[in-house]
Amino acid sequence: MAAAAEPEQIEKFLDGLKYDDKGLVVAIAQDVDTGAILMQGFADRTAVRSTITKRQATFFSRSRQAQWTKGETSGNFISVKSIHLDCDKDSLIYLGVPDGPTCHTGAHTCYYSQVDGDDGAAAVEGGGKHGQEEALTTLYELEETIQKRRTEAVKEGDKPSWTRKLLDNPELLCKKIREEAGELCETLENDEGKERAASEMADVLYHSMVLLNLQGVGMEDVLAKLRGRFGTSGVEEKANRPPKSKQAHRTG
Amino acid sequence: MAAAAEPEQIEKFLDGLKYDDKGLVVAIAQDVDTGAILMQGFADRTAVRSTITKRQATFFSRSRQAQWTKGETSGNFISVKSIHLDCDKDSLIYLGVPDGPTCHTGAHTCYYSQVDGDDGAAAVEGGGKHGQEEALTTLYELEETIQKRRTEAVKEGDKPSWTRKLLDNPELLCKKIREEAGELCETLENDEGKERAASEMADVLYHSMVLLNLQGVGMEDVLAKLRGRFGTSGVEEKANRPPKSKQAHRTG
Ligand SMILES: [Zn+2]
Ligand SMILES: [Zn+2]
Ligand SMILES: [Zn+2]
Ligand SMILES: [Zn+2]
Ligand SMILES: [Zn+2]
Ligand SMILES: [Zn+2]
Ligand SMILES: [Zn+2]
Ligand SMILES: [Zn+2]
Ligand SMILES: [Zn+2]
Repeated sequence: MAAAAEPEQIEKFLDGLKYDDKGLVVAIAQDVDTGAILMQGFADRTAVRSTITKRQATFFSRSRQAQWTKGETSGNFISVKSIHLDCDKDSLIYLGVPDGPTCHTGAHTCYYSQVDGDDGAAAVEGGGKHGQEEALTTLYELEETIQKRRTEAVKEGDKPSWTRKLLDNPELLCKKIREEAGELCETLENDEGKERAASEMADVLYHSMVLLNLQGVGMEDVLAKLRGRFGTSGVEEKANRPPKSKQAHRTG
Repeated sequence: MAAAAEPEQIEKFLDGLKYDDKGLVVAIAQDVDTGAILMQGFADRTAVRSTITKRQATFFSRSRQAQWTKGETSGNFISVKSIHLDCDKDSLIYLGVPDGPTCHTGAHTCYYSQVDGDDGAAAVEGGGKHGQEEALTTLYELEETIQKRRTEAVKEGDKPSWTRKLLDNPELLCKKIREEAGELCETLENDEGKERAASEMADVLYHSMVLLNLQGVGMEDVLAKLRGRFGTSGVEEKANRPPKSKQAHRTG
């Protein structure tokens, strides 16, 4: 976050927005760590100003014709880290950290229904179950697949999936992670090219995520840690340099 | 992707949408791999139907009062992998893979301007430079930070950043990656708890991303690989089980 903008700069920015015939722009709240689209609403000039100055995602309700700050009833506010504007200036992204589930239904995001799910388009009529039909990007789809492999029963006589084998055998899993990290390094050491590097990184990521599942850790937790380290530019060096005590431990 | 929905199921779904007084719902195109919000438009009943059946992100232009498929002029279509609906049924996510830059300006996404950037809110008036003010989630913000460390000049007498040290010393970098992978494994082997696991995974991810930068590979490429392996449920096992030839190579 850069230095706070001056009031006159904010008003100038608000002047530049392309409001629709009701005086609104679209406002999309997005999770800064996971990239999940949490909810979409509309914002009038006052709601955008409030979001800029108070750093909490604020909207204008078309049905209630009133401004509202997400979380004012549920307690789950969205802390806004940065605000982004699209090319024709009628749509904003509030990029931030939600205090808890965003949807009033208790779902993580409002987009928990999928069109064309297993039961066809009509499935959406009954709503979706959170975590099953939510809009998940590749990383979180993989995370969910690993979780499914963990909980699903393996029928007698059926071969367990590779993921399940790793989940059931921490020794094999750790052996694989060390191996894959080595193979990733070899792509650089032996100049094996982009394709191999991407592929080995995919191996490292997948196997590490199986370990994280066993530890009950989500990629969201990992990304929040990285944000803590890199969020403020400049402090990166310190946070990532191995601490003295640890170096001592290693060499000691 | 599940089996294609029947036409009557699609019409039933389209009946259930809450269109505004102009017959439109909001439609947000999101990159399935990176989670980046590519663009936001509106869609009428016909545009949503077209997106469901043709699997290309399609909108209704309010200014031109006409349906348009993203890419019909630029050639950069967005292949839609799944469609998600929000809780009050007036907003859709088109989750997909863009053929190329989404914005007509050539930017990756339409949200390339940041409010409250380095020059304050007014900065947005001049538009933003792609890659500098785009709405980036934690992982891509980190990717950009690493790239900055690579290109920035280190002044004489200044200590280089830790990232720069790693970039300049592939041997040190590979040593660190192998070390961090080992430390991640130890969190499981020694039952060190969630906090340590998340922290060590952050270490693995950061150091691996420095290596990817040296190889000219983006996390987007890695995620696309993972999507290729896990996208169709069930084929996961095969794709991730080490190939026979490689096992032979390893033991041979
Ligand atoms: Zn979240
Ligand atoms: Zn727009
Ligand atoms: Zn909701
Ligand atoms: Zn490998
Ligand atoms: Zn992309
Ligand atoms: Zn809605
Ligand atoms: Zn654009
Ligand atoms: Zn971009
Ligand atoms: Zn470590």
